[in-house]
Amino acid sequence: MRRKPNVEQRRRDLCDAAIELLAADGARGLTHLRVDRRAGLPDGTTSFYYQTRTALLRGTLDRVIELDIENFTNALNVAGDGEVDSLLSQLAEQAMRTAVEPERSRARARFELMMIASHESELGAAIEGLMSRFVAISEAAVAQVQPAGAPPDRRLVEEQAFAVVTFLGGFLFRLAYGLAEMNSAERLERYLHSVIAGVAADHGREC
Amino acid sequence: MRRKPNVEQRRRDLCDAAIELLAADGARGLTHLRVDRRAGLPDGTTSFYYQTRTALLRGTLDRVIELDIENFTNALNVAGDGEVDSLLSQLAEQAMRTAVEPERSRARARFELMMIASHESELGAAIEGLMSRFVAISEAAVAQVQPAGAPPDRRLVEEQAFAVVTFLGGFLFRLAYGLAEMNSAERLERYLHSVIAGVAADHGREC
Repeated sequence: MRRKPNVEQRRRDLCDAAIELLAADGARGLTHLRVDRRAGLPDGTTSFYYQTRTALLRGTLDRVIELDIENFTNALNVAGDGEVDSLLSQLAEQAMRTAVEPERSRARARFELMMIASHESELGAAIEGLMSRFVAISEAAVAQVQPAGAPPDRRLVEEQAFAVVTFLGGFLFRLAYGLAEMNSAERLERYLHSVIAGVAADHGREC
Repeated sequence: MRRKPNVEQRRRDLCDAAIELLAADGARGLTHLRVDRRAGLPDGTTSFYYQTRTALLRGTLDRVIELDIENFTNALNVAGDGEVDSLLSQLAEQAMRTAVEPERSRARARFELMMIASHESELGAAIEGLMSRFVAISEAAVAQVQPAGAPPDRRLVEEQAFAVVTFLGGFLFRLAYGLAEMNSAERLERYLHSVIAGVAADHGREC
């Protein structure tokens, strides 16, 4: 296998350092010089690769998204002893990992970047893309747990996925910042099932 | 009625300016000097009242909590034409107000302070107090919607309140940072009902 060009690895190292800084001290802790030092590279390296603060933030967000996708793809491949876990149980397991490193720092950086995106319009499209991914994964997870034989109901699945994304977002925030505990992925998965079933029951009442 | 001493009003004005700065630019936008200017007061005023950054953050968090309590107390009193709304519908109405000012800025400042508290131990106790309040209000709201005649089940109410706090937290984050839309408080209230009912159904299955 050919090695990737050095410039790509360098950018990844810088963005990984930026993720750690955002996680440790928030947006206030992120400067080009602090990224250089965190990454153990000569002063000026970050400014060379990312000329502006916006460029650095954008690169860091792209790196967060790349790692998110990598993680989820790995989780899908590591289905133990031939048995494939449901998407919902994989979502729950991934979410639980937010309690430990490096996922905790990535989650914190993701929240910081979502907040920054609300006043840095150049990050807006990437954040929307990230949210769409979460919605798509949640819709797929919700579709898997529809009762057998029930007619597919697009609007219901959308409402259930909205509830899952919202609940999981709240949970990840609490876990990443030490504002909640959860003793097992199974317990979290049961909460997700409850949310999905509750929305379905309410939906049925209205139809 | 006697006017409150001037020093208290001054502190409130400074903290209100700090809330606006946290909301607009995050923790990075908050400096003593910027608070002076935002509040239209002479340079050095904020440093006089809050000698350290931690003191300023702590004062701002106390102000957020004071406003949260004030808002919720007002909501409880403004029960239109003699009819008292359920706590859950009031929670939903309050949450919807996060889409507009000044509640949106307060919500953003609250999230910033929750994040800062994870690495500023002096804010920890106040944040825990704030979370306990949200939990207590949610437990009261959940208790109101238990089916009539059902035996009180403390553990179920706690699980339902956990789900409500987590879902609402996720929703407030999305609304405050432009990552979700919701067309009415009624619709949000239905989601909350669904979450509560879903947890009860799952709980019943286990007992």
